[in-house]
Amino acid sequence: MAIITLTTDFGLKDNYVGVMKGVILGIDPGAVIVDLAHDAPAHDPAAAAFVLFTAKDYFPEGTIHVAVVDPGVGSDRAILVVRSEGRVYIAPDNGALSYIVEECPGCEIREATNRDLMLPEISRTFHGRDVMAPIAAHLGKGTPFSEVGPEIGDIIRLPSWHAEGGPDEIVGRVTYVDRFGNLITNIRAADAEAMAKTGLSITAAHVFLLGLKNSYSEVKPGQWAAIIGSSGFLEIARYMEKADHPPTLTLGTQVVLKRMA
Amino acid sequence: MAIITLTTDFGLKDNYVGVMKGVILGIDPGAVIVDLAHDAPAHDPAAAAFVLFTAKDYFPEGTIHVAVVDPGVGSDRAILVVRSEGRVYIAPDNGALSYIVEECPGCEIREATNRDLMLPEISRTFHGRDVMAPIAAHLGKGTPFSEVGPEIGDIIRLPSWHAEGGPDEIVGRVTYVDRFGNLITNIRAADAEAMAKTGLSITAAHVFLLGLKNSYSEVKPGQWAAIIGSSGFLEIARYMEKADHPPTLTLGTQVVLKRMA
Amino acid sequence: MAIITLTTDFGLKDNYVGVMKGVILGIDPGAVIVDLAHDAPAHDPAAAAFVLFTAKDYFPEGTIHVAVVDPGVGSDRAILVVRSEGRVYIAPDNGALSYIVEECPGCEIREATNRDLMLPEISRTFHGRDVMAPIAAHLGKGTPFSEVGPEIGDIIRLPSWHAEGGPDEIVGRVTYVDRFGNLITNIRAADAEAMAKTGLSITAAHVFLLGLKNSYSEVKPGQWAAIIGSSGFLEIARYMEKADHPPTLTLGTQVVLKRMA
Repeated sequence: MAIITLTTDFGLKDNYVGVMKGVILGIDPGAVIVDLAHDAPAHDPAAAAFVLFTAKDYFPEGTIHVAVVDPGVGSDRAILVVRSEGRVYIAPDNGALSYIVEECPGCEIREATNRDLMLPEISRTFHGRDVMAPIAAHLGKGTPFSEVGPEIGDIIRLPSWHAEGGPDEIVGRVTYVDRFGNLITNIRAADAEAMAKTGLSITAAHVFLLGLKNSYSEVKPGQWAAIIGSSGFLEIARYMEKADHPPTLTLGTQVVLKRMA
Repeated sequence: MAIITLTTDFGLKDNYVGVMKGVILGIDPGAVIVDLAHDAPAHDPAAAAFVLFTAKDYFPEGTIHVAVVDPGVGSDRAILVVRSEGRVYIAPDNGALSYIVEECPGCEIREATNRDLMLPEISRTFHGRDVMAPIAAHLGKGTPFSEVGPEIGDIIRLPSWHAEGGPDEIVGRVTYVDRFGNLITNIRAADAEAMAKTGLSITAAHVFLLGLKNSYSEVKPGQWAAIIGSSGFLEIARYMEKADHPPTLTLGTQVVLKRMA
Repeated sequence: MAIITLTTDFGLKDNYVGVMKGVILGIDPGAVIVDLAHDAPAHDPAAAAFVLFTAKDYFPEGTIHVAVVDPGVGSDRAILVVRSEGRVYIAPDNGALSYIVEECPGCEIREATNRDLMLPEISRTFHGRDVMAPIAAHLGKGTPFSEVGPEIGDIIRLPSWHAEGGPDEIVGRVTYVDRFGNLITNIRAADAEAMAKTGLSITAAHVFLLGLKNSYSEVKPGQWAAIIGSSGFLEIARYMEKADHPPTLTLGTQVVLKRMA
């Protein structure tokens, strides 16, 4: 039984996600379909890239991840199918697979061109249903990976995924804001923890923090804290409140770590 | 394994949808349950009707669709069970199955009366859980369709589902607004495309468009476009923005197509 | 195949719920995972307690319920694993299992301490993924209940779950507001119905009602009604409108029933 995950910006108001599941089950009745996230900001491949990157290691080998954030649907952008560490990723070539590919220099990248793996009729506005869902189902049912289409060289990359700097100063930014308003940065846990050993200051807009906390609840409700988040990145959070309110701290806000002497 | 889909106006804040799944799995542990849509406008059978109608062809034969948008729960409205093209539909008699039945003059319509297929205790306010979910599970497990109850003649119909007009002018309306704010009309793709061959104008409130676009991305962000949507109907969209803002264009807005000389 | 339900305050914007499912399927590929509710108010164990309590009887024996509303994550609060009436409940010790335990004086309460049933690496902020999901999966796959950890005596209780009073007057409160704005109280159906036999008045803030209605639709749109809700408690509702608007009637509002002479 193949596990197929779905990440979209469709929300759950409409039947778009459900219809993709119908297509998958019509091809592979034994597929186990998991919703990864559907309320990502519309038309934002970077959010989908983050969602995929931070989820992948928690799914077993063989899992097939489909990400449909696709503002270019109907244009000539390619549909990518990537194999990395025993997992498969399917998404439009718009940056959604950028972080995955960045971390696996040797991974196999193909463009989906095999018409037999798609629905007989392909609409102009819903390739999640007509192209990506059926490819996922066919792969889940056993179609060899190499049959999806030819290997291609490079893909569209999102800018500046990695924080910059060295052992004394790191300059990163907020790359994701979660439902709780926690501000997740692109600063790796290991880098922040190494710096924290000798003392650490964190500056993000008007917020200035010293050191890392071990849990949200080490501070009082409403207070700010810097913490190693569950995704393996530094997070800035306000206990029991949304950190992104007021909105001076939000997606893209610069976050600077400095080692203290 | 039966596929059972759920369409409700319950949202996902409460446990109502989850409890229906518990009831189904208690009767048919092998059921594959798919959420079709749960954030439909509360108390609006027309939205559920649209959701079902545009989803049905993407699910395999044997699928059982349950739609619980039920403002009349506890009154004496009937629960309908309809069989059409190898699929089964279960919903209150309030218009939710109206479009399905309109397209299948010969389909089999029954009223659910067989008490053995329902939960032992039936509440006054949640027939999705106590009546519709267990019937779906029993049918999925193999109970013959004819045992749900007697055939009935007609059902409640929603008004004016079809656009009106001929080859030179079609008058339709916006029948659904999706999460992206795309305005989906009741004008069939084939009718709009036939008219587009010789040139076409589209008028909807203050929006005047010439011709159809092939994809959202053929226009610039913020610009309007008329497009054949993935559901098989004409859509009016604003690329990367919500078409229903400002709200002069919304559910029910008249849309007029004219063939150009 | 084990049924595992998930109740969280994570919403569906992020991948937190999906990642928990990945962890479960990695351990128990045959698990049937059901979303019970994910949009509970953030950081509110009482809402999770209500969601679990009113759902449990609709799931088959053997079901494992996981509730992750966990503002204290990373502190030294325990993770509870409770067995009651053939079902298992897993949640932080913050009141989320309070109503379940209150109704089963003899149920078995253990603290999760068996490190082998958790993920190899445990983050400080996401024990739903690292602790609770893997325990649920291991139990679903057959690990004996007693292996999760030692029995413990008592747990944290939420205040005043039961309405107070006798046959002539009951004083309760609104304990849950659902998506429709229905105000669900902690007054048991049987108590309200017994009182209604000889006539009954209901006072809640500015709303004064006489007697119970049989269904929402017995009153006109916008009118108030008191009704026995599907969860087995007295509800105050406004037909086709939200009862919690204006917000004088909301979570915690006192509701007084009086028997009429």
